[in-house]
Amino acid sequence: MAGRVPLAQRGAGLPGAVLDGLERIVGRGRLLTTVAERRAYARDSWPLAALKVLHGADLELPDAVVLPGSTAEVAAVVSLLYEHGVPVIPFGGGSGVLGGTTPVAGGVVLDLKRLDRVLAVDDASLTVTAQAGVLAVDLEATLGRQGLTLGHFPQSIDVATLGGLIATRSAGQFSTKYGNIEDLVLGLEVVLPEGRVIRTKVAARSSTGPDLKNLFVGSEGTLGVITEATLRVRPRPEKRVGRAYELERFHDGLEVVRRVLRTGLAPAVVRLYDPVEAQHSFREWVEQGRSLLVLVCEGLGRLVDLEVQVVEETLADFPHRALGPAPAEHWLERRNVVAALPEFMSQGLVVDTLEISTTWDRVGALYDAVLARMLAVRGVVAATAHSSHAYTHGTNLYLTFVALGPDLAEAERVYQEAWHAAMSACLEVGGTIGHHHGVGLQRRPWMAAEHGEALEVLRRLKAALDPRGLMNPGKLLPPPDAGARGDGKGGLR
Amino acid sequence: MAGRVPLAQRGAGLPGAVLDGLERIVGRGRLLTTVAERRAYARDSWPLAALKVLHGADLELPDAVVLPGSTAEVAAVVSLLYEHGVPVIPFGGGSGVLGGTTPVAGGVVLDLKRLDRVLAVDDASLTVTAQAGVLAVDLEATLGRQGLTLGHFPQSIDVATLGGLIATRSAGQFSTKYGNIEDLVLGLEVVLPEGRVIRTKVAARSSTGPDLKNLFVGSEGTLGVITEATLRVRPRPEKRVGRAYELERFHDGLEVVRRVLRTGLAPAVVRLYDPVEAQHSFREWVEQGRSLLVLVCEGLGRLVDLEVQVVEETLADFPHRALGPAPAEHWLERRNVVAALPEFMSQGLVVDTLEISTTWDRVGALYDAVLARMLAVRGVVAATAHSSHAYTHGTNLYLTFVALGPDLAEAERVYQEAWHAAMSACLEVGGTIGHHHGVGLQRRPWMAAEHGEALEVLRRLKAALDPRGLMNPGKLLPPPDAGARGDGKGGLR
Repeated sequence: MAGRVPLAQRGAGLPGAVLDGLERIVGRGRLLTTVAERRAYARDSWPLAALKVLHGADLELPDAVVLPGSTAEVAAVVSLLYEHGVPVIPFGGGSGVLGGTTPVAGGVVLDLKRLDRVLAVDDASLTVTAQAGVLAVDLEATLGRQGLTLGHFPQSIDVATLGGLIATRSAGQFSTKYGNIEDLVLGLEVVLPEGRVIRTKVAARSSTGPDLKNLFVGSEGTLGVITEATLRVRPRPEKRVGRAYELERFHDGLEVVRRVLRTGLAPAVVRLYDPVEAQHSFREWVEQGRSLLVLVCEGLGRLVDLEVQVVEETLADFPHRALGPAPAEHWLERRNVVAALPEFMSQGLVVDTLEISTTWDRVGALYDAVLARMLAVRGVVAATAHSSHAYTHGTNLYLTFVALGPDLAEAERVYQEAWHAAMSACLEVGGTIGHHHGVGLQRRPWMAAEHGEALEVLRRLKAALDPRGLMNPGKLLPPPDAGARGDGKGGLR
Repeated sequence: MAGRVPLAQRGAGLPGAVLDGLERIVGRGRLLTTVAERRAYARDSWPLAALKVLHGADLELPDAVVLPGSTAEVAAVVSLLYEHGVPVIPFGGGSGVLGGTTPVAGGVVLDLKRLDRVLAVDDASLTVTAQAGVLAVDLEATLGRQGLTLGHFPQSIDVATLGGLIATRSAGQFSTKYGNIEDLVLGLEVVLPEGRVIRTKVAARSSTGPDLKNLFVGSEGTLGVITEATLRVRPRPEKRVGRAYELERFHDGLEVVRRVLRTGLAPAVVRLYDPVEAQHSFREWVEQGRSLLVLVCEGLGRLVDLEVQVVEETLADFPHRALGPAPAEHWLERRNVVAALPEFMSQGLVVDTLEISTTWDRVGALYDAVLARMLAVRGVVAATAHSSHAYTHGTNLYLTFVALGPDLAEAERVYQEAWHAAMSACLEVGGTIGHHHGVGLQRRPWMAAEHGEALEVLRRLKAALDPRGLMNPGKLLPPPDAGARGDGKGGLR
């Protein structure tokens, strides 16, 4: 950001009228301007930022942070900043892994975690209405006390906010049964960039023009601020069964999952680990070189039984070994334990995960191509994958790479080259470059290649809703002059 | 349309350069300009238009009709008309019932029915890619020959085109199992108003910004021309079972449907008829004053059996009588026989259907309020409803009214007053004014009340994608100066 004032002075860079106005809106103590406070909001959980911090590099800081307590306060803040041309960065739990809240152009971070109320639970209609800043784990606990569940269990559930999950098009671990966040959202309240508050209608289903809420699901704070949502919920399952099966071949496992889904049944969790991941997390049960299918079925008892039955019938066509419930229970217990990336990194290792998806006809080829390409990157010592979100028409692949990164320059190089390897191989096979983490800064360089001419629609949408370009600038959309093919450096600053 | 040239001269109203250009693109015989040809495209299946024709009133005609044969031809036509500022009206099967293709501002009708090829069927991925002009019935037949089904069965299946169904956010009769059209569409090819062709990516699922295809699902030709689509398909069901049950009370039936859906099971067809409709269509089986639940379950045999079992267990809590499979078979046979509206009309009756929806907590109140309000309209002699698209969180109500309309003025009055009664009662209860027919001209007056402030988002979307306002003008969006509450006259011209 050439020409910007030095970091330490930035807080004072905002006009006094803006700072005073913000404090008037949110109240004393809810406008944060010290360097330490601003540093706490300088990054989300993007490994590249962690890497920089580890190596003592400076991060860009926001000019200030505000903590509004209501939709009206959000609207007043956004409106004030719009008038003064100050960027706004909506911020939830900070659990994003792609730099989606990085303040690349200064501005004010809007921390929404004070909007944390569950406003209404309707057991008859199986809906919940909650503010955007509620933690997913708290929302689920509130529902649980009433015998309900959202059925949305991202690995970040303990720290992510509802609004953040919607803004990034989250997928939960039980998505095969309950759907992804876009299948759960029935209506949204959104503060548009100029401060106008809109609410989309909640209905059983509607045909009154394009579904407007979908504009904001996945918009990553670039089109407005999500302040409230109404979502579908379900009764808590009457039965849950976990099973695991060792498979001789990963590709056989893909075929099993494909065949099960095509019956119309939808087990809640269907996870297929390749041999390296199976050894890493389940070596107690799985032989070296074998893959592992972990299954969790839940819901109506008789439906659960039928699902297990159909999975086992399908497995009969492939060499496999039933491992009973233990590996599934192990997964259920450990599923939100995230690898301590900074710890790896302090040992000179670079680790990241990325998730892609495609239709069944290409999944096997995608797996082969992406892993081979990542492993060919100098410094990459491991590249693995599992499939964890299956559909009748395809599945995701959740990739992990481990690389050597002894110093910052080398760590950044291998990090971006591994990403470039995965993204470009994925694009060549015809997959989508992102299944559920979103775009943020890290995936931006490949957005043009991902969307082709359709990116123009996203650009026009952005210009139409945020004509001053103030909402979370620098995210999602690549710069207008970016080529059609990312060079893998766009996420680096 | 004050100041326009008289009807008969309109065809000649287009500049010669435009007519020549169009013919060069689509070829001789595929540019239609005679009054008779243009008259054939002056209306869809909107009852109000039929009423006018019956009474000898004039309809607005388009200036011309073109029949392109490829996406490239569509793009060339749209681009040419954009340059010359001529309106474009995409046209499929003409089965819309709300005036959605009425040429209110002249222009050129783009008949897409020559784009009728099924381009690819992928049995492994359970996807089909087809051109927008293919008839839904032909697409289903092609899939059927390969052991597959789209699972989308609108009553208009024999005449509607795939593109039309997507553009109007169609719902099929088997939607409770297979989902509505937005659940089936995986990707779209769209010609934007200036002629640019975009394709949205087909993947298992994606998180690379807002889901752009959803902008065009339900856009009713106002944002671009859908030329191709990729959709999810399913294997043809291995078993189908039909059942019917007489219920003492309609509201008990709603409760049965709600409870069944909340188990997580999704029978393909769940139709609940109120006493008047039950007598009208099933009097052979149902006693006067009783309601009727018709059920069709299909798919995996064991799942079908479980669904029937759970429905019958749920019914046990309510006074009912099992009627066996015959009424369901009767419905399956007769389901696409549409009441001959013109015939009714020539007998001095006005008949129309309209569909609304809401969440379960309000469905009973919606039914009571809407029927009472419609029946209070002078001239309305019957108002009935059934629920035919159920969800975990709510259901639609499909309404029918019959009224006396001895002359055109009286017929138009009672028609609009009945609509106004239904729409305003629906808005007061908090329902959505449209479940699946779309907006067209007839629902436009209530769009501001339906969407509130959110309508501004739709307006900006329109301005961003169609800055010259040439795509199907006068549809979907109410005029900028329209009040927040429709007066029920907006659809009348």
